[in-house]
Amino acid sequence: MIEKLNKAFSKLPGVGSKTAQRFIYHLLERDRLGGLELAKALTDAMEKVKNCEKCRTLTEKNICEICSNDVRDDSQLCIVETPSDIHVIEQSGVYTGKYFVLSGYLSPIDGIGASELGLDELEVLLSNQSVSELILATNATIEGEVTAHYIHNLAKKYQIKTTRIAHGIPLGGELEYTDINTIAHALSGRKDYN
Amino acid sequence: MIEKLNKAFSKLPGVGSKTAQRFIYHLLERDRLGGLELAKALTDAMEKVKNCEKCRTLTEKNICEICSNDVRDDSQLCIVETPSDIHVIEQSGVYTGKYFVLSGYLSPIDGIGASELGLDELEVLLSNQSVSELILATNATIEGEVTAHYIHNLAKKYQIKTTRIAHGIPLGGELEYTDINTIAHALSGRKDYN
Ligand SMILES: [Zn+2]
Ligand SMILES: [Zn+2]
Repeated sequence: MIEKLNKAFSKLPGVGSKTAQRFIYHLLERDRLGGLELAKALTDAMEKVKNCEKCRTLTEKNICEICSNDVRDDSQLCIVETPSDIHVIEQSGVYTGKYFVLSGYLSPIDGIGASELGLDELEVLLSNQSVSELILATNATIEGEVTAHYIHNLAKKYQIKTTRIAHGIPLGGELEYTDINTIAHALSGRKDYN
Repeated sequence: MIEKLNKAFSKLPGVGSKTAQRFIYHLLERDRLGGLELAKALTDAMEKVKNCEKCRTLTEKNICEICSNDVRDDSQLCIVETPSDIHVIEQSGVYTGKYFVLSGYLSPIDGIGASELGLDELEVLLSNQSVSELILATNATIEGEVTAHYIHNLAKKYQIKTTRIAHGIPLGGELEYTDINTIAHALSGRKDYN
């Protein structure tokens, strides 16, 4: 029973058998209630969290809170690779538009093409003509740049202005591990994509 | 829902909000089944794992596997501070006796006295006369030494030979974080306690 739990914990990113064991003894000896609460929260999340029908971020509603917030600017659409990127940009506090979450980045070698990324849905959004600026906030990695380039070409079809988040972010770095101030700076200093 | 799960994960030792978030997105986006299995394993363990009636280690049975193993030597009893210490000693492969798990170490200032440690139960075991050697494998910390000293006095009452695991273990170190070879060496080189 403890071994089974150890294996389940060890599947989490960055968690080995030794860390798992520390979690388990902590819960069993000091916080069984916390263990049961974690189990309940896990089950709820795994069963009920889905993708927002508009921006595809993770949410328990059909339309997420940002998409259903009328105060936010519909004319700006920021493209990110993951839901956690939204979280980080929101913390920077300088962005008031909407988002669209890709399912990762273009990687033909792994079978991830335009439709796997959700770019078909993005094209529907762009064809609606409500977006006047597309902000590319994909990561400063090779894959992120390739994806940005692809989406830029898509936007051109609909004469939509495209900007790229500024490279205050260290090259090769990922949004999720960047500090808030750098992200605020990179967003404010965004420039035309070409 | 995601925030609730983040809080539950963040209660684990060494896990902050950022690490919790990485766990959550990993599970939601790549391994929902793994998340549900973790929840199930957690619930099972929290509800069913208890303390062995003999040695007090964590087990789902009334008597743990080591205690109910007739091949193991009843005349040797190794005293450890936590169930994970048993796990580490077992991995070293040099010990074939039985164990007794204290509930931590003596710490009068925290209200942990002899009975909280389970020393009453230990004394019952010692008075049975089946133990001929008591091996003190409490940690090489001040608290561990105080506890060892206390138990040594208890054993003297029943004329039981007491040995202390050798200090191949670095001073101030804890068993759980010591490599297997050092532990094997420390066990083999144990000497009379005085
Ligand atoms: Zn949304
Ligand atoms: Zn036992």
